[in-house]
Amino acid sequence: MFDTDVYVRRRKTLIGKMSSAPQGRRGIAIFPGNAEAPQNYRGNDYRFRQESSFLYFWGIDEPGYAAILDLDSGQETVYADDVDIADIIWMGPQPSVQSKAERVGVARSAPASEFGKAVAAAKSQGRTVHFLPPSRYYNTLLLSSLLGVPAEAVRKTAPVQGGTGCCGKAVTASEELVRAVISMRLIKEPCEIEEIDKACGIGWLMHTEARRGCRPGAREQDIVGRMEGITISKGWGVSFTTILSQNGETLHNHSHHQTITPGRLLLIDAGAESNTHYASDFTRTYPCSGKFTTQQREIYDIVESCNELAFSLSKPGITYRQIHLAVARHMLEGLSGLGIVRGDIDEMVAEGTAGLFMPHGLGHNMGIDVHDMEDLGEDLVGYDEDQKRSSQLGLGSLRMARRLCPGHVITDEPGIYFIPALIRKWKIEGTDKGFVNFPALEKYHGFGGIRLEDDVLITEDGARRLGPERLPIKSDEIESIMAEERL
Amino acid sequence: MFDTDVYVRRRKTLIGKMSSAPQGRRGIAIFPGNAEAPQNYRGNDYRFRQESSFLYFWGIDEPGYAAILDLDSGQETVYADDVDIADIIWMGPQPSVQSKAERVGVARSAPASEFGKAVAAAKSQGRTVHFLPPSRYYNTLLLSSLLGVPAEAVRKTAPVQGGTGCCGKAVTASEELVRAVISMRLIKEPCEIEEIDKACGIGWLMHTEARRGCRPGAREQDIVGRMEGITISKGWGVSFTTILSQNGETLHNHSHHQTITPGRLLLIDAGAESNTHYASDFTRTYPCSGKFTTQQREIYDIVESCNELAFSLSKPGITYRQIHLAVARHMLEGLSGLGIVRGDIDEMVAEGTAGLFMPHGLGHNMGIDVHDMEDLGEDLVGYDEDQKRSSQLGLGSLRMARRLCPGHVITDEPGIYFIPALIRKWKIEGTDKGFVNFPALEKYHGFGGIRLEDDVLITEDGARRLGPERLPIKSDEIESIMAEERL
Repeated sequence: MFDTDVYVRRRKTLIGKMSSAPQGRRGIAIFPGNAEAPQNYRGNDYRFRQESSFLYFWGIDEPGYAAILDLDSGQETVYADDVDIADIIWMGPQPSVQSKAERVGVARSAPASEFGKAVAAAKSQGRTVHFLPPSRYYNTLLLSSLLGVPAEAVRKTAPVQGGTGCCGKAVTASEELVRAVISMRLIKEPCEIEEIDKACGIGWLMHTEARRGCRPGAREQDIVGRMEGITISKGWGVSFTTILSQNGETLHNHSHHQTITPGRLLLIDAGAESNTHYASDFTRTYPCSGKFTTQQREIYDIVESCNELAFSLSKPGITYRQIHLAVARHMLEGLSGLGIVRGDIDEMVAEGTAGLFMPHGLGHNMGIDVHDMEDLGEDLVGYDEDQKRSSQLGLGSLRMARRLCPGHVITDEPGIYFIPALIRKWKIEGTDKGFVNFPALEKYHGFGGIRLEDDVLITEDGARRLGPERLPIKSDEIESIMAEERL
Repeated sequence: MFDTDVYVRRRKTLIGKMSSAPQGRRGIAIFPGNAEAPQNYRGNDYRFRQESSFLYFWGIDEPGYAAILDLDSGQETVYADDVDIADIIWMGPQPSVQSKAERVGVARSAPASEFGKAVAAAKSQGRTVHFLPPSRYYNTLLLSSLLGVPAEAVRKTAPVQGGTGCCGKAVTASEELVRAVISMRLIKEPCEIEEIDKACGIGWLMHTEARRGCRPGAREQDIVGRMEGITISKGWGVSFTTILSQNGETLHNHSHHQTITPGRLLLIDAGAESNTHYASDFTRTYPCSGKFTTQQREIYDIVESCNELAFSLSKPGITYRQIHLAVARHMLEGLSGLGIVRGDIDEMVAEGTAGLFMPHGLGHNMGIDVHDMEDLGEDLVGYDEDQKRSSQLGLGSLRMARRLCPGHVITDEPGIYFIPALIRKWKIEGTDKGFVNFPALEKYHGFGGIRLEDDVLITEDGARRLGPERLPIKSDEIESIMAEERL
């Protein structure tokens, strides 16, 4: 948890941003925190994760909390119940709700049941009730019940199509609130960057453990357990389900039942969440033999130079869409050099040929969520007003396209994959427009995929890779470290 | 996953049990499997955990599945969608839904959207729709929408108060289905016992790691990470959130921010879930110094002998309620020997004096859920028809009171805790009826708590502790092992 004044300042800024209506007609902004999430039965819950915007504005990292910010009077209230003797037996003595509220600079607290009453009172007075689209099904049910509308309406409403509140108008998440929150969370404060650096430090440890564990005969699941153990020892846990696979051509591969096999590549995309819930997200790809084959090294070096290019271009003023396209061009040049594609590079970039090899975007925003604020609307988070999302494979998946500003934290994660089903589809459908040398591609059947990812902060005049130390990435460096570690 | 015939047999047995109505009027039993559960945003999900009864009858361990058992025709159908090219890019090629259905002996599969239609068709024909009470909020929303009733009605309806289906009658979970499922899952099959033994083996490893890590200066969180890493390396993960605390008097203490301190006790209640989702659940309590103080050893030995007593009494024919009471008596005798309680033991047992020291039950059923089937209704699962749940502190929390049968898997987990708030309350309110020597209790302020838990299978003529090897438990044994491990 940060210092009290961090939360006080954030809420004050939010009120300032929520001033499109004249004072007295602004309404309230409601923040239901997360409840426990049942794993297999109620009472056996997943590790508790607080709702991200609740954490950002109200800081209290416990289930059963909610808060209301009155945009007209400025009154702030935290809602939760104090513990009783049964709670003390099972969960131990707890500070009072009031003292927890004061810790984050909120003077007023009330029992949990008052939250619904306050929402109902605002509704009945015809005041606007602003809320963010809920991520969890529990909060979907709660908002549905409080606002008196079907669950599907609360949940399905994307803020981009939404109205501005719930009363008299369409009952949707409030686009005004969503935009205000995005504008704040997108630019990381120094205290946040410090936490992301910590999460990156844990990520470094988990990836180092993985590289050391990548030896022929090792079980993938064993390595994953050791990596995730580190995230629990040092932080909250993983920031997303670990991807560790010799089938790296499957972008989000969560199966870990294979044994490390010489000659294959092991792709590891994994990150940690700090105890304060800031994320890291790194990808490295290792040769299971400890040495790359010539074919592997050729592709690896292209991906590595794409990663480097993206970083070198990252600075305020340029859009991440431009950098994605520069990377696509560089990648196609490399693949052209290997005879995998052929023809005019400009045309290939325009036609989206790179999408066959990298069917995802170059990166995404990262913060309290590893894909920061994804549920507030990917386009609102990742695109400027004057940008339109592409429908091309690859570029269309770009989550962060915005013009870069100091304080943006983004991932830089180019990749090249040889996906049999996708290659077959492009070949049959002629999607490649003749740019792809399919016979040459046959040699890459069973290759897998390579992705190399760092976390990057945009600074005043450039960029900085986050974390106390960069994970080794150059192909020579990887081979010499793996040789040393296997001694 | 078990052999195909296991699932075929289970569903056949279930149909046999669901025959209270004449053939042709039995209706359908619907089984919505679990969806992914969002952690902080949709798309960043917790590790997927299938719905336990879905796993039991349908075996398929993936999100997005549902199944229907037609109790009149015997027709079985699995519902899910095959993958498309976008899925293949992100999740890899997958066997077809049809082939997955056949693997568990189901001849018929259909797209996910057909599930809702089949339920609607049954409803419109006036057929009974049997369902189990949903644990997850997602399935609550789904059932609410399919059955056309408010979410609260689907979710809040306890089966004990419920009707027998949804059509024309009260819309509640089906008590008939709940009872049939409980009667089956309660008695573990040999293939299930083998899996629980495996989960106990992983539990042994994690507890051994914890004991070795219990050294002055170590951080609790570090130990927890290493334990949980083992459960991910060897199985699915933890079967419940790890309890590891020097404040053992808090029964479910999930905070791990302290440093191991000489003189204190470290209580560890933790278990693993096997890759096939069977649970283990063990508790041990260690002296942080490596040696017990006299006071600690006195209490420890009482708890250890309670654990032993419960095990020695466990065999078919006796109720677990009787064993809980025998343990309470034995515990009070021990505490009486230390001068902590005084008076007639029979009266103390009857008055529930043991509840001050052990405010929980002796144990619970364990299987696919660590508290097996808790959401089907604690009393239906843990109590025979002729048993009534007590309202006393301690005995009232007994989750498993039934007459023991071969195939029951239960925990044996006595504990003694000195809970300042509870002691104060009993003193002020006179709840102890004069049996408690409060001045003597003052010496135990800051003592913490001790719990010792094993997992036990009821056999034809007695009981067997589960797992390949028992975790050391005798006080002498603990001290000598800890001394050795610290060399």
